Amino acid sequence: MINLESLYSANARNMKKSVIRELLKLIQQPEIISFAGGLPAPDTFPVEDLRKAADVVFTKHATKALQYGTTEGDDDLKAELIKFEERQGLKLGKDNVLITSASQQALDMIPKIFLDPGDYVIAGRPTYVGAIQAIQSYQGRMLGIPFSPENDGFDMVELEKRHERAVRDGKRMKYIYVIPDFQNPSGICWSVEKRQALLRFAYRHDYIIVEDSPYREIRFIGENVPSIYQLDQQGENRGIVINLKTFSKILAPGVRIGWIIASPVLIGKLVTAKQAMDLCTNVFAQKWLAEYLKTGKIYELIGKTCDLYRSKRNHMVEMLEKYLPKRWDLTWTKPEGGLFLWIALPHYIDTDQMIHKAIARNVAYVVGSAFYFDEPEKNAMRINFSFASVEQIEEGVKRLAAVIVKEIELHESGPRGQTSPEGL
Amino acid sequence: MINLESLYSANARNMKKSVIRELLKLIQQPEIISFAGGLPAPDTFPVEDLRKAADVVFTKHATKALQYGTTEGDDDLKAELIKFEERQGLKLGKDNVLITSASQQALDMIPKIFLDPGDYVIAGRPTYVGAIQAIQSYQGRMLGIPFSPENDGFDMVELEKRHERAVRDGKRMKYIYVIPDFQNPSGICWSVEKRQALLRFAYRHDYIIVEDSPYREIRFIGENVPSIYQLDQQGENRGIVINLKTFSKILAPGVRIGWIIASPVLIGKLVTAKQAMDLCTNVFAQKWLAEYLKTGKIYELIGKTCDLYRSKRNHMVEMLEKYLPKRWDLTWTKPEGGLFLWIALPHYIDTDQMIHKAIARNVAYVVGSAFYFDEPEKNAMRINFSFASVEQIEEGVKRLAAVIVKEIELHESGPRGQTSPEGL
Repeated sequence: MINLESLYSANARNMKKSVIRELLKLIQQPEIISFAGGLPAPDTFPVEDLRKAADVVFTKHATKALQYGTTEGDDDLKAELIKFEERQGLKLGKDNVLITSASQQALDMIPKIFLDPGDYVIAGRPTYVGAIQAIQSYQGRMLGIPFSPENDGFDMVELEKRHERAVRDGKRMKYIYVIPDFQNPSGICWSVEKRQALLRFAYRHDYIIVEDSPYREIRFIGENVPSIYQLDQQGENRGIVINLKTFSKILAPGVRIGWIIASPVLIGKLVTAKQAMDLCTNVFAQKWLAEYLKTGKIYELIGKTCDLYRSKRNHMVEMLEKYLPKRWDLTWTKPEGGLFLWIALPHYIDTDQMIHKAIARNVAYVVGSAFYFDEPEKNAMRINFSFASVEQIEEGVKRLAAVIVKEIELHESGPRGQTSPEGL
Repeated sequence: MINLESLYSANARNMKKSVIRELLKLIQQPEIISFAGGLPAPDTFPVEDLRKAADVVFTKHATKALQYGTTEGDDDLKAELIKFEERQGLKLGKDNVLITSASQQALDMIPKIFLDPGDYVIAGRPTYVGAIQAIQSYQGRMLGIPFSPENDGFDMVELEKRHERAVRDGKRMKYIYVIPDFQNPSGICWSVEKRQALLRFAYRHDYIIVEDSPYREIRFIGENVPSIYQLDQQGENRGIVINLKTFSKILAPGVRIGWIIASPVLIGKLVTAKQAMDLCTNVFAQKWLAEYLKTGKIYELIGKTCDLYRSKRNHMVEMLEKYLPKRWDLTWTKPEGGLFLWIALPHYIDTDQMIHKAIARNVAYVVGSAFYFDEPEKNAMRINFSFASVEQIEEGVKRLAAVIVKEIELHESGPRGQTSPEGL
């Protein structure tokens, strides 16, 4: 019989299954309250408006919508996206935009065009697992940078230190990957100062910045901070930022449409890569979303989604304060937007181990270790607050708190008892 | 300023823009009759039936269709596809099927999981340009095998000879890529004997066969031949065939949905690769096509499409016979299915050069050289007969014939006149 292992590429041998997607299969039972997924609240989906927009496509553009389209993306959709971005202060031409099958496709294209095996990407510790997977699938590596204690972006001293060491060690770095707005998994939002500092760092060393912004519009507290793409555009305009956007969190993930914003020369290279990857993105979905955007209803939808997530986030934070033990070594982020917060637990807790106990108590989270390229920190978890209902949030946090409290007790009584038993 | 070239990966430097897609941009003017594209006839798109199916999704499954789905693909769609394949004699379980963003995504995933830089794929000369591009984008190489004079598959003697030499030269081969049903670009359909011979060859050398079947259902003359996947399944059942299917030619390319049929272990590996490429395929489109398939109307649609393409193909062949000069060194294939035929011209004609003259006469084809990984043959062209109307076919062939006749005249008078002018 054929020996498949001997046929697989080094890329394939380097691929890792997503811990999250495997976990999600485990927790399908209805009795489990899951804070694990990254799902938007389905009650935000504007079903009737989307039905009407689809109907316009069938009536007016059916033949085009069902035929092949260009690799670059549908011109109507691009025109609408340019208007959408203009409201956020971005000036874009058609050549600055490439439509993708949501952001994950972009996250796959970028290492493909930049990374040779062993090349490095500079990224946060922790960072989005889908970006890690894509980088691994091209045998890329990651130089992890911790966040500052102020939760306002990278620890810039650590960035300089680790970068310098990496350069000294002959590591070849290509781009910096960041999610400045309400990072997955931490919920952290970068300050404008940190964004500017990162841009200067990239200028100095000739790196590309990949700015992944799936949650940018989902801000429910505080004021908008300019994107790094904007800071470059309004400043030296060197065109080194690739900004990734998607409809997944502001409209619906099932439509699988995202867009890349970048300089025309980078878009050109990405188009060449994309030709061989899919010829073109779902043409029907592009025409459909163009019609939906023309109605202007997305702004109201985003407003409503932010209202809903604000109340869920507030409730989640309140419940964590109510049920979790008050200790200096048990903290959580309080995001101003997005879908996630991050709980850091006492150092001796291993959330990879604890997840089985949590599932036994019918509550689920994503293990923190999933968000590290290497040397994972084991004492953290990602908590999603967009999907569960208000009632589920309280009940779920109660269950989670019970699991954590028990884990702390186990440690604080257990090991001492075992390692230095009285009388020996 | 940043030097992008120094940041690009070897993959990126190896990527080539599709000649076809660049050509298609050139020939957008309405006065040009194009035989260049690979577009299905838009009058085959079942707009009203698709509208009804979409409406069922909005009414019954909206929340699921707009949410994230599994990487493997929607269970409803898979169930319908399993029934669809069963009518063609294939027995499949859920684990044998992976939904993709049409076949091009599959053509991108396969070299990703099998090819290290410099690894070889065995493929026909000529072969589908999208497969060549995808293989190049992972720095793969191709061992080209000519087709037999009978147009019934590879020249098996050449396959053995070239393969043996490649093995002797230390070339590392991983899989065989073929389009046995009405190949793009040649229109050739493999005989069952050649399919079996290729399967035995693959068994003997432990290669995977990638059987790309976008046109399989579009047979308008003659009897179905079992797919190589079927021959393996009904024979030794070694599970080494990966069969690629798509809705692009049997329904509509704009829906961007295809499916991979393979052994569960290969599907598992492809799923891992796909997680990092797109998380999941367009969920709405999957639910939509599942609803469309449930109506059973696809069989009637395929029948009508075959009728239409048969009449266009017959007309095209008739017009070629009527207008092209009758010469032993000017031949064309007469496909029993699919969308394309292949014209081989006298050896001295360079269709790369001639395309500009053709466009000047308002007719377009795809240059034969596009379909070769290396050492392209320059005296051929691919002709599409599915898209142009019956009237356009006659007028287009007339224009094309005029260009070819002039090119032949130019050669047969010109060079002789120039190289040995009388009186010198």
